[in-house]
Amino acid sequence: MNPSPDSGLLSPVYAGTPVEEAVGDTAWLRALLEAEAALTRAQAGLGTVPAHAAETVTAVARSVRLDVREIALASRESANPVIAVVGALTRAVAEHDAEAAEYVHRGSTSQDVFDTAAMLVCSRAVRLVVADLGRTADALEELARAHRDTPMAGRTLALHAVPTTFGLKAAGWRQSVRDAAERLGAVRTPVSLGGAAGTLAGYLEYAGGQDPGGYAERLTAAYARETGLDVPALPWHALRTPVTDLGSALSCTASALGKIAADVQVMVRTEIGEVGEPPVAGRGASSAMPHKRNPVLATLIRSAALRVPALASVLHQCAVCEDERSAGAWHAEWGPLRDCLRLAGGAAHACAELAGGLVVHADRMRANLDRTAGAVVTERVAAALAPLLGRAAAREVAGGLAQRAAGGTRPADLLAEATAGALSPERIADLLDPTAYTGAAGHLVDRALEDGPRPDPPVR
Amino acid sequence: MNPSPDSGLLSPVYAGTPVEEAVGDTAWLRALLEAEAALTRAQAGLGTVPAHAAETVTAVARSVRLDVREIALASRESANPVIAVVGALTRAVAEHDAEAAEYVHRGSTSQDVFDTAAMLVCSRAVRLVVADLGRTADALEELARAHRDTPMAGRTLALHAVPTTFGLKAAGWRQSVRDAAERLGAVRTPVSLGGAAGTLAGYLEYAGGQDPGGYAERLTAAYARETGLDVPALPWHALRTPVTDLGSALSCTASALGKIAADVQVMVRTEIGEVGEPPVAGRGASSAMPHKRNPVLATLIRSAALRVPALASVLHQCAVCEDERSAGAWHAEWGPLRDCLRLAGGAAHACAELAGGLVVHADRMRANLDRTAGAVVTERVAAALAPLLGRAAAREVAGGLAQRAAGGTRPADLLAEATAGALSPERIADLLDPTAYTGAAGHLVDRALEDGPRPDPPVR
Amino acid sequence: MNPSPDSGLLSPVYAGTPVEEAVGDTAWLRALLEAEAALTRAQAGLGTVPAHAAETVTAVARSVRLDVREIALASRESANPVIAVVGALTRAVAEHDAEAAEYVHRGSTSQDVFDTAAMLVCSRAVRLVVADLGRTADALEELARAHRDTPMAGRTLALHAVPTTFGLKAAGWRQSVRDAAERLGAVRTPVSLGGAAGTLAGYLEYAGGQDPGGYAERLTAAYARETGLDVPALPWHALRTPVTDLGSALSCTASALGKIAADVQVMVRTEIGEVGEPPVAGRGASSAMPHKRNPVLATLIRSAALRVPALASVLHQCAVCEDERSAGAWHAEWGPLRDCLRLAGGAAHACAELAGGLVVHADRMRANLDRTAGAVVTERVAAALAPLLGRAAAREVAGGLAQRAAGGTRPADLLAEATAGALSPERIADLLDPTAYTGAAGHLVDRALEDGPRPDPPVR
Amino acid sequence: MNPSPDSGLLSPVYAGTPVEEAVGDTAWLRALLEAEAALTRAQAGLGTVPAHAAETVTAVARSVRLDVREIALASRESANPVIAVVGALTRAVAEHDAEAAEYVHRGSTSQDVFDTAAMLVCSRAVRLVVADLGRTADALEELARAHRDTPMAGRTLALHAVPTTFGLKAAGWRQSVRDAAERLGAVRTPVSLGGAAGTLAGYLEYAGGQDPGGYAERLTAAYARETGLDVPALPWHALRTPVTDLGSALSCTASALGKIAADVQVMVRTEIGEVGEPPVAGRGASSAMPHKRNPVLATLIRSAALRVPALASVLHQCAVCEDERSAGAWHAEWGPLRDCLRLAGGAAHACAELAGGLVVHADRMRANLDRTAGAVVTERVAAALAPLLGRAAAREVAGGLAQRAAGGTRPADLLAEATAGALSPERIADLLDPTAYTGAAGHLVDRALEDGPRPDPPVR
Repeated sequence: MNPSPDSGLLSPVYAGTPVEEAVGDTAWLRALLEAEAALTRAQAGLGTVPAHAAETVTAVARSVRLDVREIALASRESANPVIAVVGALTRAVAEHDAEAAEYVHRGSTSQDVFDTAAMLVCSRAVRLVVADLGRTADALEELARAHRDTPMAGRTLALHAVPTTFGLKAAGWRQSVRDAAERLGAVRTPVSLGGAAGTLAGYLEYAGGQDPGGYAERLTAAYARETGLDVPALPWHALRTPVTDLGSALSCTASALGKIAADVQVMVRTEIGEVGEPPVAGRGASSAMPHKRNPVLATLIRSAALRVPALASVLHQCAVCEDERSAGAWHAEWGPLRDCLRLAGGAAHACAELAGGLVVHADRMRANLDRTAGAVVTERVAAALAPLLGRAAAREVAGGLAQRAAGGTRPADLLAEATAGALSPERIADLLDPTAYTGAAGHLVDRALEDGPRPDPPVR
Repeated sequence: MNPSPDSGLLSPVYAGTPVEEAVGDTAWLRALLEAEAALTRAQAGLGTVPAHAAETVTAVARSVRLDVREIALASRESANPVIAVVGALTRAVAEHDAEAAEYVHRGSTSQDVFDTAAMLVCSRAVRLVVADLGRTADALEELARAHRDTPMAGRTLALHAVPTTFGLKAAGWRQSVRDAAERLGAVRTPVSLGGAAGTLAGYLEYAGGQDPGGYAERLTAAYARETGLDVPALPWHALRTPVTDLGSALSCTASALGKIAADVQVMVRTEIGEVGEPPVAGRGASSAMPHKRNPVLATLIRSAALRVPALASVLHQCAVCEDERSAGAWHAEWGPLRDCLRLAGGAAHACAELAGGLVVHADRMRANLDRTAGAVVTERVAAALAPLLGRAAAREVAGGLAQRAAGGTRPADLLAEATAGALSPERIADLLDPTAYTGAAGHLVDRALEDGPRPDPPVR
Repeated sequence: MNPSPDSGLLSPVYAGTPVEEAVGDTAWLRALLEAEAALTRAQAGLGTVPAHAAETVTAVARSVRLDVREIALASRESANPVIAVVGALTRAVAEHDAEAAEYVHRGSTSQDVFDTAAMLVCSRAVRLVVADLGRTADALEELARAHRDTPMAGRTLALHAVPTTFGLKAAGWRQSVRDAAERLGAVRTPVSLGGAAGTLAGYLEYAGGQDPGGYAERLTAAYARETGLDVPALPWHALRTPVTDLGSALSCTASALGKIAADVQVMVRTEIGEVGEPPVAGRGASSAMPHKRNPVLATLIRSAALRVPALASVLHQCAVCEDERSAGAWHAEWGPLRDCLRLAGGAAHACAELAGGLVVHADRMRANLDRTAGAVVTERVAAALAPLLGRAAAREVAGGLAQRAAGGTRPADLLAEATAGALSPERIADLLDPTAYTGAAGHLVDRALEDGPRPDPPVR
Repeated sequence: MNPSPDSGLLSPVYAGTPVEEAVGDTAWLRALLEAEAALTRAQAGLGTVPAHAAETVTAVARSVRLDVREIALASRESANPVIAVVGALTRAVAEHDAEAAEYVHRGSTSQDVFDTAAMLVCSRAVRLVVADLGRTADALEELARAHRDTPMAGRTLALHAVPTTFGLKAAGWRQSVRDAAERLGAVRTPVSLGGAAGTLAGYLEYAGGQDPGGYAERLTAAYARETGLDVPALPWHALRTPVTDLGSALSCTASALGKIAADVQVMVRTEIGEVGEPPVAGRGASSAMPHKRNPVLATLIRSAALRVPALASVLHQCAVCEDERSAGAWHAEWGPLRDCLRLAGGAAHACAELAGGLVVHADRMRANLDRTAGAVVTERVAAALAPLLGRAAAREVAGGLAQRAAGGTRPADLLAEATAGALSPERIADLLDPTAYTGAAGHLVDRALEDGPRPDPPVR
């Protein structure tokens, strides 16, 4: 019986999303079989394995149904699942063609197959993540365009600072999302092909009398072609840049999405109310409080953003691996690598929905701006008054606006008094108008959106 | 279809171990149902829910078969699985008794049920881990006793330093394992009972006219009794010490076990060969190299030790949670908490087997000691020669022993020459005998083992 | 020239606080000298070093002025500072008494001295941290008592949930702070005494003919007495529980303080305004905006809370150390251990000030409660209406209160209509009164504060 | 008095290295002053600040001597050092020219100056790190070339696997180092220019009547020119890709260097002895054991590699920052960012020395290869025997070689017997010769070294 160790119950951020399935045990097992089959085809292409054997192995690898739990349990005997997969595949091939079975995993080693399968899984998952980042960026572009000039309070250290626009905020979110997509898209996912200790000696031994250098190069290229993966600079059993690169790019992704969630969680607060999550019937209901519509998507995204950086740090730690294959540092990578993929991917999926349906309350943004009775424009007031009163006095007048307003003095009156009539009522009204103090926000939005359409997912 | 997100394929360290099942989704779902049932019983005990309703809820919670995957998918709508579980349980109870169904989750909130269920899962898993740590400590005690006086090279900064004994090493391992068991055993796992925002207002409202303080206290005590969990000082929705304590103790556990694995990995090296993992047919086989018997257990343990500290750091990070319930920091705990349990638990299970069957090659230990031609006793030689030659000259003679031996001069001759006959041949032989320089190792072992039998697992 | 690598410029959270100085390089260097001196006194107490030599070493260790930067630079040659310190101390002692100089570091090893010094530094720093946690807890107790019945919105997932009291919130903060103090206070800080590889062989060799077990035990006890530190179960060069325990307790501390900061940052927001940081002239000024009073203390505390858990995870990672002394894992501990101490300590210092001077705006709490036109009591309304309307209909009425109020219908009228007169106007008014729905909050505060005065700092 | 919080005593890996000084408090303070001065020059270039004022500010910023400790202490009042620096600089400028003092920090905000200064510090430090990586790669290239065909045991899971060459190992190290240098070199370090909340409103206000978009763009470009930094896509106060990119690349660097250290620590072991660290008089001495020459450089490098990934994870965590400027997440970046730079940089400096002077004992490599009596070639033997005996029987014969050899049977005799004379003695000798089974190792070295000279440090 499968005790169901993990079906997504504890990680709703990825439960049911495409990336979850793409990196699940079933997908990983299928990739292991694909990696074995592609290896025989690569060898067949170079004439060192019979073509029909490669065909048979490929066909069986596609059709065989292995019990993922049985393989997992068997893995405990060798610390990795490849030996069990090779055994099962060999037996299944042998049922069709005993000779072809001789060519399964020929000259190979567990890590070649596992790492190649991992890169297949990763490259597919990365495509899904990049696609969701693209959808997110598109939606944010629309928001930025639509709200290019929607004023809202810029907030720093939790307080109103000076006005900004929601368009600029959305453009910034988009910029980070595109940064992440660019970094993800640039990660190379190479085949692993080194044999027992990275020299390809086993492959050469079975190839019999081939020129070592030439054969190694051709076999690597053929394996890359058969899998659609990249050609590595060197066998990388103990040189883990592909894995740390993935960790870094997924961590960057989680941070970019987490930033959006953090902002939404501020803006959705009862007292602030500037945005709402996309309304979906039943979504965000509370078990106790009928009025609540919890910001579920932002919550899920933030939960992923809190987890990914630490997981990615494990990948970097594991890259400090001894010898030609580590006794443990390699094995410790697998879980965190998958978790990084499905957490970042689940968050990207949620964020595409969040960005696509975000409800923007421009009226609340405006109302919040007006709450501080001018405090939000003190920077400007101080700058405008400085030539008249000197820098220090100007700061003092500006700094006192809100307090005095709380005491009943209208800011406009205060300014008129302080400047002894040197400023016209119109100038004072302008100075105190938060919507007149959004600086270059609109232009920054335009420039940010000029950078062309979203990056395509990497083609594999 | 269940895409099998995780059946253990990528984490052989816990695949198939008892702790894996104890913390799996199925177990977690069962605990959620138990937590709901116990709550109705606790209320029934105080007379605020009819006894028969509590009985029905309990019976149905035990027998109902929910699809864990369906619950997981539904969780994405509310960011946690409780609402879906409450719905399914309520429907199932209503099929037996519509009135009883009214009492499911009465006055409660998702986090009360989830956190209580989590503590049930944790306390059960911790018992398994502590039991395996106990088995490990017992086996290490036997090794320490058996090898109290087995000399081996003490190694520092990767080099032979001075002799030690394998008994002292084993006693040290045991000490760390007991430290971990003690810390795990001391962790308190309280029920969660606060209602929507930690005031128990919902429970009180449904209880109708009870004295708030008295009822809150009685209900909490009753809930603790019904679940076998601890009574908390305060509702802890946003006060996460129980979770960070678990993270700390499991991290300590992983470190203690990882230290053993790190040592075994050194001693098992081809050139060193001082210990071997328990021989099990087929275990540790390589897919390529027939001669290999890979140190699988140490590898699995180390893979867990590399992962747990970062996961535990997430738990501490999540404790920085805003408000009466965090939008994301709470949700981010669940995955890492389970991973800490199953990784530490899987490692403990592997370590009990490793310690119980470790093959000790005392002859290789002795042979390795002899390889440095006296270098391993230079500290002693320098100390013994200092009164005769002065500290600096003594250091120089001692420091040159190995080099000179490599050049053909026997250490004994060198010492005789350097001390101009002041030391007898017997004294020189004793000075150069590594087995005569193990200090207080034997006594330290005795003292360490005196501390009585292993700690019992905490009783729940 | 000292390039001033770190004078606190980048970590204002601890710059100038007592713990900063207690763990600074100067303090650490002094502790190294103390550890050397205490060792000679311990040996002198057992008669294996002349009493006058121990006195001279102690006097010189106290008075000698070493250049910390020179020692730091010299450390690069041996990967730790002890050899340079021993050399400098020996030379300084020799200037007074050449014979006494022979007894410096006798039979010892770098790690004994370094780890003992580290424990001296840690135990002193921990006392400072615990004292600041005590001050914090005292201040929070006052807040909890003063605001036992001050109603405010309980917030979950960023939204108003049901009412709570500020007293309960403060009592919860205090609980976490006391949990942290308790964990810190329970950490044992033992002397390190093992000699080159943990057998004490060097000490015994110089002691000449002593009973190994008895002497080892007496020397360890004497060293503990001379330093005021604890007696370890075994030499712990490669058994790092004391260090991981510190990491865990300091991480718990940072989390507890960070939770307070996170809450304050929510409550201080311009739109919420329920608390203010202690007003200090000039504190929290902005370089640009004269009106701002940034929540500086909460900012500093949160900055520490974001850093400590990852640093503590390094300590747990380093405990996976090979051999009798690791080549790197030991050395990697020092920086993170100090950073954990000064970050947690700096945060505790800031939090004592924050808690001691927190300005509570009960009027804003009340005003915020009233903003949702009844939404904050929907749980109660639903519970009260359920017997009249059934559970589902009751939920619907309650859930619609706020929306309908926004549309102009007074909640009281809505309830009267929905219940067709079954509820009196008084009952309805009570149902809609948020201050009447704080559950057992007051009682929970009382119970939490009953637990007696704050824990004393550990006595050393 | 400066309590000397950190002069490098606890981190010998960077004490005294160029990068330490480049990122020290003094350098950071100088960069803050540079950032202020460059801002006035940029504004002067656009005519919005008088040229002479910019000149005066620049001259004073270069010559003023601020007390870094005083600034650090003052920072605690505002949570960052900029306000204190602005105050001190303004006063110093006013001593020369009161009018010029009016233009210091005009329209600006703390974060613009701090982040720009941080990027100045980072870009300079990165150049140092990349230069040391280049030196390391050069030295490794020489090692790879010199030992292209030096056979040694390939080791996997701590055991001999099949032969490899030291040249291939060195080429792999070089590859990872170049990967790291490439990633570091590609990191963009932009100026920060957004004003109080990212709209540049303050700059525009003081500029008076400029076209917002055009002025913002020109000012940003001018600031980039004056500082030698990059132009950002948008103001990045709350969009932290530049910081997370640095964290990722430095983490990659630490991993690449740590991998080398991990391998050296294996090879330097007393029983293995295949390499030695560069011999330097006094380096690596032990305080107790005169014979030891501890592998100090590898130890230092590993100590850094254990610390950087967790620190980099903090940077990613901090990128999840709320609002237009975070209350704490920004502040938490500074320390970890500097630590990543100086740890990775110190490790690179140590590694350049390690790689440049590594002593290779080819004889010990060969001797270790011969120790397993043929086990190291069982993969090949099994492949060669398979056509004669079938796969399973071939594996069994090969797998038994070492054991039988231990029992006295020469491997050659065993093979002759098993193959019943089908293999010639020459073929058997060849099969058992480990140096004849290094696969494509030599070719892989050639190909890896073909990739041209080392990458230049980025030009700034």
